[in-house]
Amino acid sequence: MENLLCSSISSTISAWLAEDIPSFDYGGYVVGSVEKTGHIYGKARGILAGVPFANEVFKQLGCKIEWFMEEGNEVDYNGTRIVVAKVTGPSNKILQGERLALNILARCSGIATRARKLKNLAEENNYNGYIAGTRKTTPGFRLIEKYGMLVGGIDGHRMDLSSMIMLKDNHVWSTGSITNAVKSARKVGGFSVKIEVECQSVEEAHEAITAGADIVMLDNFRPSALKEGACTIKQEWSQKGRQILVEASGGITEDTIQDFFSPGKYFYYTNIKI
Amino acid sequence: MENLLCSSISSTISAWLAEDIPSFDYGGYVVGSVEKTGHIYGKARGILAGVPFANEVFKQLGCKIEWFMEEGNEVDYNGTRIVVAKVTGPSNKILQGERLALNILARCSGIATRARKLKNLAEENNYNGYIAGTRKTTPGFRLIEKYGMLVGGIDGHRMDLSSMIMLKDNHVWSTGSITNAVKSARKVGGFSVKIEVECQSVEEAHEAITAGADIVMLDNFRPSALKEGACTIKQEWSQKGRQILVEASGGITEDTIQDFFSPGKYFYYTNIKI
Amino acid sequence: MENLLCSSISSTISAWLAEDIPSFDYGGYVVGSVEKTGHIYGKARGILAGVPFANEVFKQLGCKIEWFMEEGNEVDYNGTRIVVAKVTGPSNKILQGERLALNILARCSGIATRARKLKNLAEENNYNGYIAGTRKTTPGFRLIEKYGMLVGGIDGHRMDLSSMIMLKDNHVWSTGSITNAVKSARKVGGFSVKIEVECQSVEEAHEAITAGADIVMLDNFRPSALKEGACTIKQEWSQKGRQILVEASGGITEDTIQDFFSPGKYFYYTNIKI
Amino acid sequence: MENLLCSSISSTISAWLAEDIPSFDYGGYVVGSVEKTGHIYGKARGILAGVPFANEVFKQLGCKIEWFMEEGNEVDYNGTRIVVAKVTGPSNKILQGERLALNILARCSGIATRARKLKNLAEENNYNGYIAGTRKTTPGFRLIEKYGMLVGGIDGHRMDLSSMIMLKDNHVWSTGSITNAVKSARKVGGFSVKIEVECQSVEEAHEAITAGADIVMLDNFRPSALKEGACTIKQEWSQKGRQILVEASGGITEDTIQDFFSPGKYFYYTNIKI
Amino acid sequence: MENLLCSSISSTISAWLAEDIPSFDYGGYVVGSVEKTGHIYGKARGILAGVPFANEVFKQLGCKIEWFMEEGNEVDYNGTRIVVAKVTGPSNKILQGERLALNILARCSGIATRARKLKNLAEENNYNGYIAGTRKTTPGFRLIEKYGMLVGGIDGHRMDLSSMIMLKDNHVWSTGSITNAVKSARKVGGFSVKIEVECQSVEEAHEAITAGADIVMLDNFRPSALKEGACTIKQEWSQKGRQILVEASGGITEDTIQDFFSPGKYFYYTNIKI
Amino acid sequence: MENLLCSSISSTISAWLAEDIPSFDYGGYVVGSVEKTGHIYGKARGILAGVPFANEVFKQLGCKIEWFMEEGNEVDYNGTRIVVAKVTGPSNKILQGERLALNILARCSGIATRARKLKNLAEENNYNGYIAGTRKTTPGFRLIEKYGMLVGGIDGHRMDLSSMIMLKDNHVWSTGSITNAVKSARKVGGFSVKIEVECQSVEEAHEAITAGADIVMLDNFRPSALKEGACTIKQEWSQKGRQILVEASGGITEDTIQDFFSPGKYFYYTNIKI
Repeated sequence: MENLLCSSISSTISAWLAEDIPSFDYGGYVVGSVEKTGHIYGKARGILAGVPFANEVFKQLGCKIEWFMEEGNEVDYNGTRIVVAKVTGPSNKILQGERLALNILARCSGIATRARKLKNLAEENNYNGYIAGTRKTTPGFRLIEKYGMLVGGIDGHRMDLSSMIMLKDNHVWSTGSITNAVKSARKVGGFSVKIEVECQSVEEAHEAITAGADIVMLDNFRPSALKEGACTIKQEWSQKGRQILVEASGGITEDTIQDFFSPGKYFYYTNIKI
Repeated sequence: MENLLCSSISSTISAWLAEDIPSFDYGGYVVGSVEKTGHIYGKARGILAGVPFANEVFKQLGCKIEWFMEEGNEVDYNGTRIVVAKVTGPSNKILQGERLALNILARCSGIATRARKLKNLAEENNYNGYIAGTRKTTPGFRLIEKYGMLVGGIDGHRMDLSSMIMLKDNHVWSTGSITNAVKSARKVGGFSVKIEVECQSVEEAHEAITAGADIVMLDNFRPSALKEGACTIKQEWSQKGRQILVEASGGITEDTIQDFFSPGKYFYYTNIKI
Repeated sequence: MENLLCSSISSTISAWLAEDIPSFDYGGYVVGSVEKTGHIYGKARGILAGVPFANEVFKQLGCKIEWFMEEGNEVDYNGTRIVVAKVTGPSNKILQGERLALNILARCSGIATRARKLKNLAEENNYNGYIAGTRKTTPGFRLIEKYGMLVGGIDGHRMDLSSMIMLKDNHVWSTGSITNAVKSARKVGGFSVKIEVECQSVEEAHEAITAGADIVMLDNFRPSALKEGACTIKQEWSQKGRQILVEASGGITEDTIQDFFSPGKYFYYTNIKI
Repeated sequence: MENLLCSSISSTISAWLAEDIPSFDYGGYVVGSVEKTGHIYGKARGILAGVPFANEVFKQLGCKIEWFMEEGNEVDYNGTRIVVAKVTGPSNKILQGERLALNILARCSGIATRARKLKNLAEENNYNGYIAGTRKTTPGFRLIEKYGMLVGGIDGHRMDLSSMIMLKDNHVWSTGSITNAVKSARKVGGFSVKIEVECQSVEEAHEAITAGADIVMLDNFRPSALKEGACTIKQEWSQKGRQILVEASGGITEDTIQDFFSPGKYFYYTNIKI
Repeated sequence: MENLLCSSISSTISAWLAEDIPSFDYGGYVVGSVEKTGHIYGKARGILAGVPFANEVFKQLGCKIEWFMEEGNEVDYNGTRIVVAKVTGPSNKILQGERLALNILARCSGIATRARKLKNLAEENNYNGYIAGTRKTTPGFRLIEKYGMLVGGIDGHRMDLSSMIMLKDNHVWSTGSITNAVKSARKVGGFSVKIEVECQSVEEAHEAITAGADIVMLDNFRPSALKEGACTIKQEWSQKGRQILVEASGGITEDTIQDFFSPGKYFYYTNIKI
Repeated sequence: MENLLCSSISSTISAWLAEDIPSFDYGGYVVGSVEKTGHIYGKARGILAGVPFANEVFKQLGCKIEWFMEEGNEVDYNGTRIVVAKVTGPSNKILQGERLALNILARCSGIATRARKLKNLAEENNYNGYIAGTRKTTPGFRLIEKYGMLVGGIDGHRMDLSSMIMLKDNHVWSTGSITNAVKSARKVGGFSVKIEVECQSVEEAHEAITAGADIVMLDNFRPSALKEGACTIKQEWSQKGRQILVEASGGITEDTIQDFFSPGKYFYYTNIKI
């Protein structure tokens, strides 16, 4: 997954290192710069994620890091801490990066772990649609949280407001109708950006699709109504040569998600933030 | 169109102002800060574009700008310069912003003008597909160039590598097949990002679509072959419930574009950089 | 609490706004810039925190925000959503700031809520020492998380490596002894920076204090041993004219913290991250 | 020419790389990081320019680039594409840099090509004065455009408002006279910054020079009047121990420039933006 | 001392290099990039300081620097310039870094030299308290100036407003009393941040300490009154188990400082800015 | 003089404010945000300088500042502190800006004061050439220091390596001769950038001027040799229609500068850093 990342993570990591040492590193003076080796331990079960970000932390500090397990695999914790990685370098540099690297790995792995759990639930239920995240991410930290979702095996959903267009009631109100809102969105989004419309009924969904939406979200539908609605929409439009995605949202949690699964390929949208 | 923009253009404009005055503004000292009024003139026919960026320039400098025509309309130049806007503020501030505002307006309007010409050609030929730009933009200046395309009336195409995924021969080679490349792309792009595949033949296009591509590009096809291929692809997949976009690329210029137009809704992709 | 903040939060907020709109705000184009009013609702019990950050978000976007409750007070949720604030401004601007403001408020309030719970536990148990946070914060988001702790009523502990010096086994090893480590730290930290030493025994604590430490942490002590050790240390050094803080760390959670409380004024150090 | 550049181009290149990949590099995931080799081809005649900027792009991405021709030489295109350079590195990194490097090289080489053409025209006409660019450059991209002018063989003219002072009618008006404007400029510019004055007549030029101007621009003079005016000015002041540069501006294009050339060493100022 | 520094000095050094070359390095073009060796000479007596910052300058420029004396030692100048360091690298790069490195070394060493002189005065007078700097530092350059103080052997005092809290008359007025001000400060500063109160009398000092202050400053006391006051305060509170620091400020210069020294361990606070 | 400045000082001031408050403003919490008025006092004789920078500090903090004397005038201190300016705003904001504003004003005024003294010496000696500063400025703070020189009444000399080209022995060695170095510099600097050559003899000066130098520096000449050399050079070249500036450098201090003055208009170059 690290091939997803580009060189601009480097300046983000620099800024985070600076957050932790705004002026002097007093502890670094005490500990000195003799070459040492430190270890990163796993102390709970979960999916390891965030490896390329931790790599960048230690690369910037002139340390080497060696991993003993692969990103995306499970930390097989059984009460005894497990060596996940080994860091070698000047002792002050190891300590400068230690907390940042752990803070990244803990958050990214936590999200990957929750994501994997949902993915496994889907597989157990023979659900082959998508499960996706939200934009409810920590400001400034979204890339890492979305990355954790991908490592865990679910979909990141749209990255930001410049990616897929989502039209909600506000957009509809200000343009007068779903049809107007979709046409207005298509005018600027062009062919390369998908358009999704949040719908309160199957009728609204039909209007959205007729106007050109690629995806419709059935908002706060109960599981049975959702399944029936999605089925209707998908079949009807398939006959007209359109392959429509139906998204569900509202009330979907780890506990309730199984009620929403269905054999057909529509997908569920739920907040997996930890 | 200015509602497309967000507050981050403000720091870009600041950086551009600083590019022009790295230390002292000697001329500003000479001219002083007495309130004055300056004018922006149109000296050629063309579509006005870039207005919100020029607004931001003068807003940062504490000047007021009043426009006498709307963005997207044509400067009706007939040999006599036309007052397009009026700027009021301290004379040193007007001069600090003048060159930057003109540099932005000239480039953005130039692109909008070329874009409008292509749009008009499409309308005259009853072509109702898309005409779109490229990523061949000036580094650091892409947003303004894409904005100019939208003002002119054509599509900006994907904004960057994080938007729509385009798979080319390199991606195919490294994964072994078009099918593998598309599936790999879908794994990380999820449902919210479109996938386009550059194809050398109609057969490749079918493989791409089967694997899940949303758009196929018929690369360097001659006009007749393109029209025939696009027609085949669209019809065949429509029957299977899929609405496929076909993109053309290669050898399309202002002079040749009319040969590529066709009644069906596929679109042309051409470099409209000026 | 907002008087704790300085103008540099402004550039942080700008960066976070840009994270959510790297290029165009397609939805903003659809919704337009007509003046509208939106509301921020409370949908769970908890302590409101993060208000000045949300204020800055909407200030940058040219919107007004009016609060119906004060930061630090509890959202008195009983199943019906509660209007916490009202935002007025151009509709595209409200939507540009909505998600960011909510993401900030949700995290900051969550931390304040957990912090308040611990604070209340302390009061119920007549504990008048400190409860403090950690550096285990989200990279780039520490200021807001520490702010949430303060709003909740607990201590933020040291902000970063340039604040209070904490000496751990690594520092001791590299200098040969606790005494050397403390003296080395004092040489650069001077009189204005406090020094804390992580100790495995009461003996180590005495060595640290003799060398000049301001605070000793009794690491992973069980509650009874902790109370006894802290009592010994504090009494002994008080007679020598030194007022020593004793910190506890390890195994302290919301569930176990009551075992660690004691009447004397030493403090507990626990991870309150949510 | 690359010795003209300093290390700060590195952060500019980083920002441009980030412009093209604001979040994930989906295509990079597909193509992987196996070591590959790519080529940069010349597909038109022209002067190669921008080499050190392209070098920096690929250096930041951990790729090697080898050039098969030197900057400033002509791409000898005769219908068959010519290998200009070879890039070796991880395939995702090559693709991350490809478009940016090409966008830089295309623009910089285009300007160098136009500049060279003007330089050749000057040589053919035995003109040994300067031909110079303008500040009408793309915001944020000026350094590369000025660099292209130098590679092409013409003069970059002043870099920005903090370089040579140019006084125009606005400066004169606000100070009351050309004399006042020049004296005011000299007060802050000191001896190290040149002063140029835009003049509408030879009389104004004399006033400017008397006041201390280093350069006078004869604005919108027709070729014959320009030559006569420049001759008069240069001779008269040479006798007084002053060596005055005369600049021409207005109506000078690739097509008309030959009319402006003259044996004496004054120089022409024209917009060579492509 | 270089272990006190973290990687964020790298971006500061980059910014300073850019300050000196906003666009082209004309001299660098002339001198070329042939490998050369240059020397840094000491031309006055003084303490060498600033070494790690100069190292970073040349590291960024791809040059090697070798030092012939250690930071903190005295340049033993006797009328003949002394080779302090040798720089090897491309000649344009050496010249790009030369002035910046010298500007840093000159200022940092100057401060270290003044600091050392004060430190020596203290030792000669058997004073074993602190001598400390101020926040009266050059904007943007504080880290280097504080670093010079540490190299010279005196204390840097608080780094900034986020470090140790200092309460002055303004704080007292706005809260109604010293007691209120100290309690308010402790509420947000917690246990990890020290609190100092500026006092006009010994009575105020007692109030401050009673409220929880760690340090009291006796403002503008004459030497005899200071010594007496400090003695009273320290003894009285030592009996109550508190070890109080007393700071002196006002009228303390290199010439007068000896009058302020006293055997007991309180410290003097004086501006050592050069 | 404030018209010399542009809006980019705003981000510099922001960075300096952040330097002083990296995280929380504890004192600001204590003092609160009640509207207060503070004063800036003059406590020594000297020239006031730095006013627009102090204005920007308080503007960013939402405070008003009113000045009771003009920049460039002398603080007429006679033992009683003089009110120079009054600041009104929230008390925490006044305190956030106080130290930064004073640090700027103190340094800038100090330089202006020294500069004025040199300017007055020149006037008393009827010297009408230039006195100029150096690039030996504090990293990151050059603009303010050069500004102080201008307010004081001397010349700032070249701003940076991208301004006037100065050729020294290194440039000469690497190109083989002064003639080659000057021609190489002119090739890239063009007509808009001045060239100065550091010369060890009058012969070298003649070579430099013949090659096209605008300014020659007679390096480390004694006053009598300097005056004679400068006279020879200026006369000889005036007859050939060239007006040559001669710069002196080396051994020029406040104490010695009068020996270097001479009636003719050549100028002296001396380091006026304070």
